[in-house]
Amino acid sequence: MSNAATHAADQDHLWSVEEHLEDILATVRPLEPIELQLLDAQGCVLVEDVTVPVSLPPFDNSSMDGYAVRVADVAGASEEFPAALTVVGDVAAGQAEQPFVGPGQAARIMTGAPLPPGAEAVVPVEWTDGGLGEGPVSGMRARSAAPEGATGHVNVHRPVQARAHVRAKGSDVKAGDHALEAGTILGPPQIGLLAAIGRGTVRVRPRPRVVVLSTGSELVQPDEELGSGQIYDSNSFALCAAARAAGAIAYRVGAVADEAETLRSTIEDQLVRADMLVTTGGVSVGAYDVVKEALSSVGDEDEAGSGIEFRKLAMQPGKPQGFGSIGPDHTPLLALPGNPVSSYVSFELFVRPAIRTLMGLEDVHRPTTRATLKSDKALSSPAGRRQFLRGTYANGEVTPVGGAGSHLVAALAHADALIVVPEDDTSAEPGAEVEVVLLG
Amino acid sequence: MSNAATHAADQDHLWSVEEHLEDILATVRPLEPIELQLLDAQGCVLVEDVTVPVSLPPFDNSSMDGYAVRVADVAGASEEFPAALTVVGDVAAGQAEQPFVGPGQAARIMTGAPLPPGAEAVVPVEWTDGGLGEGPVSGMRARSAAPEGATGHVNVHRPVQARAHVRAKGSDVKAGDHALEAGTILGPPQIGLLAAIGRGTVRVRPRPRVVVLSTGSELVQPDEELGSGQIYDSNSFALCAAARAAGAIAYRVGAVADEAETLRSTIEDQLVRADMLVTTGGVSVGAYDVVKEALSSVGDEDEAGSGIEFRKLAMQPGKPQGFGSIGPDHTPLLALPGNPVSSYVSFELFVRPAIRTLMGLEDVHRPTTRATLKSDKALSSPAGRRQFLRGTYANGEVTPVGGAGSHLVAALAHADALIVVPEDDTSAEPGAEVEVVLLG
Repeated sequence: MSNAATHAADQDHLWSVEEHLEDILATVRPLEPIELQLLDAQGCVLVEDVTVPVSLPPFDNSSMDGYAVRVADVAGASEEFPAALTVVGDVAAGQAEQPFVGPGQAARIMTGAPLPPGAEAVVPVEWTDGGLGEGPVSGMRARSAAPEGATGHVNVHRPVQARAHVRAKGSDVKAGDHALEAGTILGPPQIGLLAAIGRGTVRVRPRPRVVVLSTGSELVQPDEELGSGQIYDSNSFALCAAARAAGAIAYRVGAVADEAETLRSTIEDQLVRADMLVTTGGVSVGAYDVVKEALSSVGDEDEAGSGIEFRKLAMQPGKPQGFGSIGPDHTPLLALPGNPVSSYVSFELFVRPAIRTLMGLEDVHRPTTRATLKSDKALSSPAGRRQFLRGTYANGEVTPVGGAGSHLVAALAHADALIVVPEDDTSAEPGAEVEVVLLG
Repeated sequence: MSNAATHAADQDHLWSVEEHLEDILATVRPLEPIELQLLDAQGCVLVEDVTVPVSLPPFDNSSMDGYAVRVADVAGASEEFPAALTVVGDVAAGQAEQPFVGPGQAARIMTGAPLPPGAEAVVPVEWTDGGLGEGPVSGMRARSAAPEGATGHVNVHRPVQARAHVRAKGSDVKAGDHALEAGTILGPPQIGLLAAIGRGTVRVRPRPRVVVLSTGSELVQPDEELGSGQIYDSNSFALCAAARAAGAIAYRVGAVADEAETLRSTIEDQLVRADMLVTTGGVSVGAYDVVKEALSSVGDEDEAGSGIEFRKLAMQPGKPQGFGSIGPDHTPLLALPGNPVSSYVSFELFVRPAIRTLMGLEDVHRPTTRATLKSDKALSSPAGRRQFLRGTYANGEVTPVGGAGSHLVAALAHADALIVVPEDDTSAEPGAEVEVVLLG
């Protein structure tokens, strides 16, 4: 870790948010690409430049339901003096063989069907009598109900130019064109394009598998009875949902009791399905802080970046943090504090960018903006700590929600932004311009 | 359908985008709520007002690792003249029994642990000698390595006020408070709050199950060989991905050949897992437009709103559209045109709002904005049709991508916005202000 060497000996050193994030992002690497089925690749980052193997459309085809004709045969045609043509058959989409359209002839053609040999243009059915011998029609009768529509005669009421209502082969993309560049995030239209050019699978970075564990002997599963001194486990739920929202496949292990050996074996068990591990709780200075106890000694001394380092950060909430890698594959592990708001803010600042780095995304950070602080009173903030307060943002203004206490999980559920008070400021006055992280 | 009666007899009537959307949204109803496990409810809309059953925190507890003390015992304490207290035991989080803290006594306490009886405040461990008899310490030694820390004596270096470093019972939320209102969308912090108050399951509207079928005998599965006159099925992929992105659980049935009986039986088969069906292709005026043929007759005449109605809309792309309900449960079905861009634009305009209505969301529409048209030449648009062109939007400007052709799927994959040219305009000049739909 680039910043680790400098301060490692100093237990009381407060690391900046940037230093910690930098160390995390310097260690976390994008996952190795795999070939996935198209719909499994939704939201993933493409790692190959995709070239068009076959031109789209792959053949000249009709853009209308109508009649494929020769231009000379319908020159000067009008409703009063229609061009009468012999219908030599149907050209439906997906039909392998097409009739030849000779002089004085027409083939009834459907949208998307290949322009048959001999034909030069398509006349929309609405410009004809549809073969019924009367006035203009609004559409064709269904083949199943009126098979005679593919034969007989048709009166054409208007002339057409060559290539009219014909979509030319390759007019969308040509064989050899770049369809999508490496780095593209695959949303619905990109998946549509890949399918259209015949790609059933595609090479992408997979969604990271993130295992979330909360620690604490006081934690009880929701819907269970609370005993004396117990609280409900909420972190594993909130962070699992947040990891998913960031793009990961998240596994909730739930709460592990404050026993170093249990925690260590649970984490070792989970490594097989983890691209990253996230723990909450047990990282502070108490005598039962088992995450610290269990993981401080797991590093391989010979391996740079191996092992978990615990730090104090110049931020509030979220002062105690752990980060490093664990197990034979050096799986990244982020150890967050246990207070619900601390863990959630830590997730936003550190885990989310790490997940998005694993995905191969370039834009790993939440958007930030400047906003006017809308508040009855000044916000206070401890000197030397960057404070992240919960707020709601709208129209250039941000309003604090709840107080600074890191246990205020109810307020968090009503916030959509974090208000940032810098390390050097001990207060933010109403009407001041402040930095805001938009939680989106 | 409110607008249906007016125009039903007139085959050539062009319906407006608004009329069609209004009819769809007047028919589609939010799904019946069900009780879901918390993490299964992510992204869903809550249908109950959730009340806090038990105050948070449920008991007075420590916000620091330190020592629980009586205020009088540490009055006037300093590093030079520390208050020496007898350590009567540990109070760890989750511990059912706490020691009584009498005069001259202290209990070592961990963050989140209940304030023990007799104690009035918490002194952070950093304000003490940690029981080691030397200067201030930066933390506690692990209980497992140094069990003697729970006994002996501790020197306290600073006084505290009553309730210092104590989080009061109910300071986050109180029993009986409203935690979340009906209508809340459950994101990670809301799920965290529900877990924190002990809710393991919650009553929400489920994600709609949307079945996507494309129709066309010319369609081939990606990765297969293209025969003469064939193209790859892309609509079922793009719309499946789009339905998911809108919040649905999407099932891709894939391509069905242009045979009315096959289509009808496939749709009947799928009804069991569908809250909504979406088809593409076969809705225009051709002789092989099987969706129209298969579904025009399925309505129950006695049931208002039953059956599928096919219409022409005053829009480009996306003129032919079908909508109605089908089967014993009157499952909504939207029949979209088959050109890839037509079907995608139709999805955005009609299917996405329908999916979000099924979810019980209030905000069902894509955001729109006004933007300056950045283009070398004027955009042309047919009179009487509202045109939706693909574009990229940034900083108040929108730039067209590709042309107006509805087969331009490659251009669609590089767009992030739709440029709207109203029915009455036949062109949009460079520099003009235009309406833009942001595809997000």
